[in-house]
Amino acid sequence: MKRILTVLFFVLSTFPLSAQDATWIYYPGDFEIWLGNETQNRRTERDGFFPPFWKMDSHYVAVEFSTKLVLPVAEEVEIYAEGKYNIKLDGKILPACNKITIPAGKHSLNIKVHNQAHVPAIYVKGQSFGSDESWKVTFEDKEWIDESGKASDTSSGTAYLQAGRWNFNSPDTPPSEFKLAVTPMTAAGTEKKGAGELIDFGKETFGYVKFHQLKGKGRLNIYYGESPEEALSTTHCETLDRIDIDNPSANDFTLEDSKAYRYIYVETDGDLSYSSVSMLYEYLPLDYRGQFRCNDELINRIWDISAYTMHLTSREFFIDGIKRDRWIWSGDAYQSYLMNYYLFFDSHSVTRTMLNLRGKDPVTSHVNTIMDYTFYWFIGVYDYLQYTGDREFVKQFYPRMQSLMDFCLSRRNSNGMMEGLAGDWVFIDWADFKMSKSGEVSFEQLLFCRSLETMALCADIMGDTEHEARYASLASDLKSKLFTSFWSANKNAFIHNRENGVMSEQVTPFTNMFAVLFDYLDAEKTKAVKDNVLLNTNALKITTPYMRFYELEALCKLGEYNHVLKEIRDYWGGMLNLGATSFWEKYNPDETGTEHLAMYGRPFGKSLCHAWGASPIYLLGKYYLGVKPEKEGYKEFSISPVLGDLKWMEGSVPTPKGDIKVYMDKKQIKVSATEGEGYLYFTSSGKPKINIGDIEQIAANRYRVMIDTGEEYIINGRF
Amino acid sequence: MKRILTVLFFVLSTFPLSAQDATWIYYPGDFEIWLGNETQNRRTERDGFFPPFWKMDSHYVAVEFSTKLVLPVAEEVEIYAEGKYNIKLDGKILPACNKITIPAGKHSLNIKVHNQAHVPAIYVKGQSFGSDESWKVTFEDKEWIDESGKASDTSSGTAYLQAGRWNFNSPDTPPSEFKLAVTPMTAAGTEKKGAGELIDFGKETFGYVKFHQLKGKGRLNIYYGESPEEALSTTHCETLDRIDIDNPSANDFTLEDSKAYRYIYVETDGDLSYSSVSMLYEYLPLDYRGQFRCNDELINRIWDISAYTMHLTSREFFIDGIKRDRWIWSGDAYQSYLMNYYLFFDSHSVTRTMLNLRGKDPVTSHVNTIMDYTFYWFIGVYDYLQYTGDREFVKQFYPRMQSLMDFCLSRRNSNGMMEGLAGDWVFIDWADFKMSKSGEVSFEQLLFCRSLETMALCADIMGDTEHEARYASLASDLKSKLFTSFWSANKNAFIHNRENGVMSEQVTPFTNMFAVLFDYLDAEKTKAVKDNVLLNTNALKITTPYMRFYELEALCKLGEYNHVLKEIRDYWGGMLNLGATSFWEKYNPDETGTEHLAMYGRPFGKSLCHAWGASPIYLLGKYYLGVKPEKEGYKEFSISPVLGDLKWMEGSVPTPKGDIKVYMDKKQIKVSATEGEGYLYFTSSGKPKINIGDIEQIAANRYRVMIDTGEEYIINGRF
Repeated sequence: MKRILTVLFFVLSTFPLSAQDATWIYYPGDFEIWLGNETQNRRTERDGFFPPFWKMDSHYVAVEFSTKLVLPVAEEVEIYAEGKYNIKLDGKILPACNKITIPAGKHSLNIKVHNQAHVPAIYVKGQSFGSDESWKVTFEDKEWIDESGKASDTSSGTAYLQAGRWNFNSPDTPPSEFKLAVTPMTAAGTEKKGAGELIDFGKETFGYVKFHQLKGKGRLNIYYGESPEEALSTTHCETLDRIDIDNPSANDFTLEDSKAYRYIYVETDGDLSYSSVSMLYEYLPLDYRGQFRCNDELINRIWDISAYTMHLTSREFFIDGIKRDRWIWSGDAYQSYLMNYYLFFDSHSVTRTMLNLRGKDPVTSHVNTIMDYTFYWFIGVYDYLQYTGDREFVKQFYPRMQSLMDFCLSRRNSNGMMEGLAGDWVFIDWADFKMSKSGEVSFEQLLFCRSLETMALCADIMGDTEHEARYASLASDLKSKLFTSFWSANKNAFIHNRENGVMSEQVTPFTNMFAVLFDYLDAEKTKAVKDNVLLNTNALKITTPYMRFYELEALCKLGEYNHVLKEIRDYWGGMLNLGATSFWEKYNPDETGTEHLAMYGRPFGKSLCHAWGASPIYLLGKYYLGVKPEKEGYKEFSISPVLGDLKWMEGSVPTPKGDIKVYMDKKQIKVSATEGEGYLYFTSSGKPKINIGDIEQIAANRYRVMIDTGEEYIINGRF
Repeated sequence: MKRILTVLFFVLSTFPLSAQDATWIYYPGDFEIWLGNETQNRRTERDGFFPPFWKMDSHYVAVEFSTKLVLPVAEEVEIYAEGKYNIKLDGKILPACNKITIPAGKHSLNIKVHNQAHVPAIYVKGQSFGSDESWKVTFEDKEWIDESGKASDTSSGTAYLQAGRWNFNSPDTPPSEFKLAVTPMTAAGTEKKGAGELIDFGKETFGYVKFHQLKGKGRLNIYYGESPEEALSTTHCETLDRIDIDNPSANDFTLEDSKAYRYIYVETDGDLSYSSVSMLYEYLPLDYRGQFRCNDELINRIWDISAYTMHLTSREFFIDGIKRDRWIWSGDAYQSYLMNYYLFFDSHSVTRTMLNLRGKDPVTSHVNTIMDYTFYWFIGVYDYLQYTGDREFVKQFYPRMQSLMDFCLSRRNSNGMMEGLAGDWVFIDWADFKMSKSGEVSFEQLLFCRSLETMALCADIMGDTEHEARYASLASDLKSKLFTSFWSANKNAFIHNRENGVMSEQVTPFTNMFAVLFDYLDAEKTKAVKDNVLLNTNALKITTPYMRFYELEALCKLGEYNHVLKEIRDYWGGMLNLGATSFWEKYNPDETGTEHLAMYGRPFGKSLCHAWGASPIYLLGKYYLGVKPEKEGYKEFSISPVLGDLKWMEGSVPTPKGDIKVYMDKKQIKVSATEGEGYLYFTSSGKPKINIGDIEQIAANRYRVMIDTGEEYIINGRF
């Protein structure tokens, strides 16, 4: 038995490691927290600093990294660390150094780092192994030494996690020096206006303004605008910079902080001159793995501007708007996760964002202080598992999921429902109609129920049968109550809320459309919601792309493909008609002129580039190309392409390690999948034919084809 | 009603504040955590970095400070901050600046600071007010703005504490630049030894070694020793420095890090010369408010060396030993608190230390990972209240007390007792005899019981009647079980432990003597413990000053004053005979020569300056001068002076804002107290006389006198 274990140990600890795999590693989640503090504390309002109003956590300032080694021959090992560190080989502290020789044989190597300002991190590179996610980390190794000098056994009392990492693969690129990429961009136009100059970069952008041949002494006043009106409003633009310059000879000058704008208005005080203004566009390098093209150029433009909006807001994290907050908001980010699965499939951006939002224990408030945003966090984990199959994430962070759920459970009322307590923000939506956020809001209970279902799933992954049963039972109880309490037989829809035991009369779209998305309704209630809420022109109207996301998704689920395409053309097309080069935080077609720019009681308060504006990417990929995972990580998928009123469409949907390509016109469907297996579903009014594989009829005019090779399946029929 | 409130508000917010009171403020406990990380991560073993093995917490990186003002006239206000900050006056963010003018009237002033590397802190100085502990602070203000621009009401959802402060009373001395004081000291002697030079500073000391007229190029090797043997052992001394020098012309050179030593051995490589070596003694400026003198010069020397030992270990925090760990250990610190009350009465050093030890939630292990050290933390709070009367401390940190107690309660076994679980260190003492640390250790239950009693007291202070009842009931249950489970009628003493339901046969001193200290025993059991354990020469022998502290205190409580003085002369006198200039971590009179220097399996592992060695300060102040508080903060005190075998003694015991002075010889007692009131108790074989006040007889030969004026009371009698 011992021999077998030793052999196994050798296999586990040496084979998967090689010197070229070395990367900077840290306590998982800590880089995400540190980076979030750095970035979220960059917000300014006018020229004042505007920090977030929820708890900012901190990385663990002292972290121990460890690995077990079996070296066939002695090897030289280079060690880099961010912070003050020590190296312990086989339990003995070595003198401070950054190169050690480890003799052949079995060894334990421990490195402990202290760093208050930055995340403790190491990069270790031997000949046969390197630092990677196989290393164990802890913030309390609990290794004490008794009076005889014997070290305590830490094996059972210490909680170890696998190391966190990203892509810091060189000793010269430590995590603390992380920066987004930049590339130079020129201005599209320049115009004298009043005492200054209005520079137009041609489209919404983000980056560092650069002055060329800046000379003289004086003050440079830079007013940023997503619209020309905003840039020219020196008194009301949302962001600005005032910089004192003293350049006796002409020099190029790039601003220290990057900002979002399409326009800048520059005024100089004193004796300043410059030859021109350009910028360094700042972005997260990402592949556009998802694609969509069709016969309708308006839809194509909407997809392109959605993708650009999504890319602008996919930065250090998935943020909300690039001009104003630049904060990580769980409800906004939740939509970015979904869009990301149909565009970049960049899982690290999802986990970076989720880990920052979750932060550390103790939980002292809802995520971003918002009750619904806590629930979106859970549901985001559910989707993440479904799309990526990354169970390791759950294994590392299940305790943090539990403590967040414990926080929720501790705040239920005597009905087992959650109401907004002191300090809780019940957000739901920026709606133009009045709605109560008090008492038992049915929408919140619905999201809470889905969160409990997510916890049951995660408990199952952890083999935590006791909690799995508990979460599942809580979810099922709450689901029953949702119907008994809020479904109105009279209105044939869910009621908005109940306050002090009194049911309101209001029907809002939120609970109703999410119940469709979560498959909580039977056929009869589904139809009722469709007719009475979703397609009822007298129902309350959603004016944010945020909730339009779910509204249109629900309509897609209900088969209203033509209607949804029309809505996309009207709503997103409406923004394009108004000159949008990225999609907005809020759009009410009934407003006119500069009304479109105002929000929060400020003339330019609205964000004109907001992540939640990019949902067509998701809708077109999931409901028109029709691709989605059926089992975790696309091990099994389904492809159900639907043209709606389009003549043809083609596109690609990324999977963890591959792509699913779909082409469809009225006579032909072509699909190929380089990973996983699954079914293509389609409706054909004539009997379809296929080049390879078999077509199986599953209902009248309804067929399916098993897709289980990487080849292209071509089906001819009448679609 | 409104008018009254306004007036009250005015009184509270303006009268106690004045410009000269301005001080740097921060989130309470955060400076203590940050400073503890800085100092505890300075430990080295040889030339390797040796960080603590428990969780290091972090300050809150974003903190909001706020105050309400009523200004009769407009005033100019200076604002300094450590970190990136904003200023919000009456809810509106001002442009970044460090001087604002606030108009006359009612205002709210909020300042929010972000700082990852250092503790967010501010210093605000107006004409009529300044930043002080009346300001409120929070790490999550939860002030969000709705779409109309209206700010949320944060009054009820946010937990505010009063600001923390120390003595950073000038804008130029921010908390991040805190340093202990230094003063130059010369060497007592220098001797050539081998290739180098042995420098003796005459006594144990702490500070920065300084080389005068250092010139040339080469390496300076400095080996530190608390003994000459250690300094000369270049291969085994516990600390050392190796510094590369390149000084073309002669310069004075002071080392960057301070260390503890009496001796240093200097060897140079290359071509280096220096004229002499001195040092900068580094210390916390503290008043020696407690005093003790008597006819016995040995006792006087023991008191002096105890006080010096105490001062050397009273630094940024009360630390254990100054050579090796320089860490904050709760069990060691607990004794420092008690000694402090009889020497410096520096309450801030107590709270600094307690706050660092407690750290932040979540609680992931016992304090310092040691079960007993968690309990000493609670008991330290009990004493702190008793000596200082500072209920504000409890009010600020009650939630942290509760979460630490919850941690304990969650780790009880089915008998409601605590056993060491995985990762728990059950320390008790460094004993030379074998004792089990497994199963239900009676000593741990005893400390647990006292901790629960402390929690009941704190719950009472908080008006938390529900928890008060719960803690009190848990304590009383546990106390009963202690007797039913561990008191052996056969041995007439407490048994050491029970493992898997089986009672051991061993009687150790710990539970028995602490039961005396906590007044848990009736007269019969008290006598049994005294005879069978404390005065039984066959009983197991304590060899650390740590447990001798409690052993001798218990004997004092039992009236064994002569015996205790003899023990002090033998034990502490024994160390002095061996040349001690500070008291040790461990002393076994049976050892000889360099055996006294070894510990932890290392020849110089033992600390020769250890806080727990200084207990005579406490014993002489509390049991011979006989001064102790009877009600919180010395509002009421008792003075019960006892000479033991001394001919005369005199001394002073500090109280929060005053002193109690005591003189006693065989014929006269003189006492005076500048604060509080209480009784002087004494035994006189003849009828005593007094200069002022009344003598009341309370038993045969036993008298008391009410002390309630600041005057000196002189009693003549036969004592």
